[in-house]
Amino acid sequence: MNTGKLVVIGGDAAGMSAASKVRREHPDREIVVFERGRHTSYAACGMPYFIAGQVESSDRLIARRPEVFREKQNIDVRTLHEVLQIDTEQRRVQVRELEQDATFWEDWDHLLIATGASPIVPDLPNIDADGIFSLSTLQSGIEVFEYVENRSPKKAVIVGGGYIGIEMAEALLERGLEVALIDMAPEVMVSMDADVAESISQAMRDAGVRVFLREKLERFETDANGTLRAVVTDRQTLEADLVILGIGVRPNAELAEAAGIDLGANGAIKVNKRLETSVPRIWAAGDCAESFHLVKERQVFIALGTVANKHGLVAGINISGGTMEFPGVLGTAITRFQDLEISRTGLSASEAEEIGIPFRARTVDALTRSHYFPGTAKVKVKLLAEEATGRLLGGQIVGGTGAAKRIDTIAAAITAGLTAEQLVYMDLSYAPPFSPVWDPVQTAARTLL
Amino acid sequence: MNTGKLVVIGGDAAGMSAASKVRREHPDREIVVFERGRHTSYAACGMPYFIAGQVESSDRLIARRPEVFREKQNIDVRTLHEVLQIDTEQRRVQVRELEQDATFWEDWDHLLIATGASPIVPDLPNIDADGIFSLSTLQSGIEVFEYVENRSPKKAVIVGGGYIGIEMAEALLERGLEVALIDMAPEVMVSMDADVAESISQAMRDAGVRVFLREKLERFETDANGTLRAVVTDRQTLEADLVILGIGVRPNAELAEAAGIDLGANGAIKVNKRLETSVPRIWAAGDCAESFHLVKERQVFIALGTVANKHGLVAGINISGGTMEFPGVLGTAITRFQDLEISRTGLSASEAEEIGIPFRARTVDALTRSHYFPGTAKVKVKLLAEEATGRLLGGQIVGGTGAAKRIDTIAAAITAGLTAEQLVYMDLSYAPPFSPVWDPVQTAARTLL
Repeated sequence: MNTGKLVVIGGDAAGMSAASKVRREHPDREIVVFERGRHTSYAACGMPYFIAGQVESSDRLIARRPEVFREKQNIDVRTLHEVLQIDTEQRRVQVRELEQDATFWEDWDHLLIATGASPIVPDLPNIDADGIFSLSTLQSGIEVFEYVENRSPKKAVIVGGGYIGIEMAEALLERGLEVALIDMAPEVMVSMDADVAESISQAMRDAGVRVFLREKLERFETDANGTLRAVVTDRQTLEADLVILGIGVRPNAELAEAAGIDLGANGAIKVNKRLETSVPRIWAAGDCAESFHLVKERQVFIALGTVANKHGLVAGINISGGTMEFPGVLGTAITRFQDLEISRTGLSASEAEEIGIPFRARTVDALTRSHYFPGTAKVKVKLLAEEATGRLLGGQIVGGTGAAKRIDTIAAAITAGLTAEQLVYMDLSYAPPFSPVWDPVQTAARTLL
Repeated sequence: MNTGKLVVIGGDAAGMSAASKVRREHPDREIVVFERGRHTSYAACGMPYFIAGQVESSDRLIARRPEVFREKQNIDVRTLHEVLQIDTEQRRVQVRELEQDATFWEDWDHLLIATGASPIVPDLPNIDADGIFSLSTLQSGIEVFEYVENRSPKKAVIVGGGYIGIEMAEALLERGLEVALIDMAPEVMVSMDADVAESISQAMRDAGVRVFLREKLERFETDANGTLRAVVTDRQTLEADLVILGIGVRPNAELAEAAGIDLGANGAIKVNKRLETSVPRIWAAGDCAESFHLVKERQVFIALGTVANKHGLVAGINISGGTMEFPGVLGTAITRFQDLEISRTGLSASEAEEIGIPFRARTVDALTRSHYFPGTAKVKVKLLAEEATGRLLGGQIVGGTGAAKRIDTIAAAITAGLTAEQLVYMDLSYAPPFSPVWDPVQTAARTLL
């Protein structure tokens, strides 16, 4: 078994999960982690709630600090260290220590690339203006928080109606801002179908968010000091002193590409199921790497914290000499806008069409609890099944308290290759405070039969 | 296809689901339902919440009234009609119309027995005293409600720490009563293991319920008028002016037995997967019939509303000439005590031991949401997997808001025969308001590896 030195590039979910797993398996192995930022293992998904003021301190978002990794796990985590290049021949990386601006080479026997993903920032006039933010690192979240605290912006424009956009709309409303959201697509939440997603944009409008769909960001206007003043779209000019960009992420694969490591889906680092790259002893995990999609049956780029953690565990097992394959993803995701819960898994109808799988889809309106039970709320469930076999392909849920976590039942059924009929007869839990006697996902499945 | 006259005995979940399904398939077929009570299709599971005052009227518990079945679905529902015997030779049932006390015979071509289950009432001194109740029909729930309203009892004793006992403890606390609960077992909720269930009895004690375990009910004391005064156990005498019996149910199979129809598990009516009894053209569904247990791989008696509805649908399909097999049950159930959510599915450790399947079990303490997210609560998850294969056998969950419905994910995984490892890598949903990055059920699964 190879127990040589492990170097990890990137100290967040995937990198630190892998390093921790290797440490558990090999108590004496040398493990070095280079992280270009100040923080390790932080909960990027918690940033909107921190900005909203629902989490008392950004420190709470940090799962484990560098010094804890160093002291408790003997993992040599070096923050503010940026890897500049990977030398696959001599098995070494070139590193810049950012505070001293010193550069050095570090050898490795195994290398894990866990460089994450970065927000897409469009190349538009005045994109660098003061007041325009995207959310990526914990530091970027702290900057938005401080801007809201210190500059008291009044009018926010959110660009992009995905998870970040929806969560930041909630956060900024909570901070008392006027919020507008623009999206090029016909509906928010492009990973869902419009017949379900329209409930989300409706809830946002009901809460006072001005939602502008099919509208394209063109540029930003600033005042003489270079401070943001307005957002200009192809239809209008929106006054703004805060802009949040939430138009997607791209994998941080430049280092890998420069080293001759193959790239795959959407420019993510190509990996096999053991998370090995095209170069021996070099592994990739988390948002920078591709994943196998269990329904699409192809490699995809999906940047999500859950996947990054699982990638890290799988890479850690394999780097420790084990044999573990990462089975794949369904693109399961969940969020909320205020009291409206939102989730999806597997294929949307538009994805199924794109792939060319003949399918049936039904959307039902049901209730989260028994109809007579206090707090029962509307829930919309959409299910997709393969036309020929009835095999479940995907699900989408939008509804009140308790609605959205049901997506996991659908995810489990899809993972196992179950049909809509098998879901109908599945022994799911029922009691009036939790569900109608036919769970909403089963009601949806019944309409598919 | 046989489209002859269908007679259904019993107008609750199973019977009316089947009748409705047959009506949808055969718009002109003659369908007669005999129900000995006043009500059809009511939510028995809602009664504790009605008694608690959380549901404004018992009418709200009725999903569909007899006149609606008659007028909208052309189903001839006759309430206050008790079937006295089944004549399997001449294909007829003898019926007593209870209001007029008139008896008549009704022919059938297909017969569905959906007679439900009845609470077990121990044969103890003064068991008939005023103030002693069990919950079964909607009428029985109304009687408890009226007793609480009109007689203002002060001290309740609940016998049995199962679902009814736990729910009625919450309900009676809410009505301002002092509540004691006695159970013969070492812990409440015998369908769960003690290491998980102890959290439930602890929560009940914290809420002021006096919980007495390993204590046996012996008799009741009454005053000179025959009104309940106290409950006597093998250890003490507890003052009481209200007693709720929740010590289980038995299938109402006497009619079937008297007609020579085979009985099966625990005295429930023996059925095959199509829900046919041992006599051709006679079907049984719901709480009076047995079900196949998917993990025990044997017939069992499980009386639950979800199962009754599914039974009704399957029986209805088959009576309509279709071919549908009821796959089976896992014993999935959910309830709550105040804010503490409780659920289970598949085998408990004691059931696995009884059956003799070598297994591993782990119980973990986790959180319902991200650790930094407001409202995060403790959750305990127990998982069982087969020792040899890792195949999941059962799960139990006790925890705060949002904890218990996760049991459905485990139920789906068990239904599909997935292993603990497959659950670990399953693409479940994550966002800070809903889950830690590793869902608690996955954290439990990881400890099993």
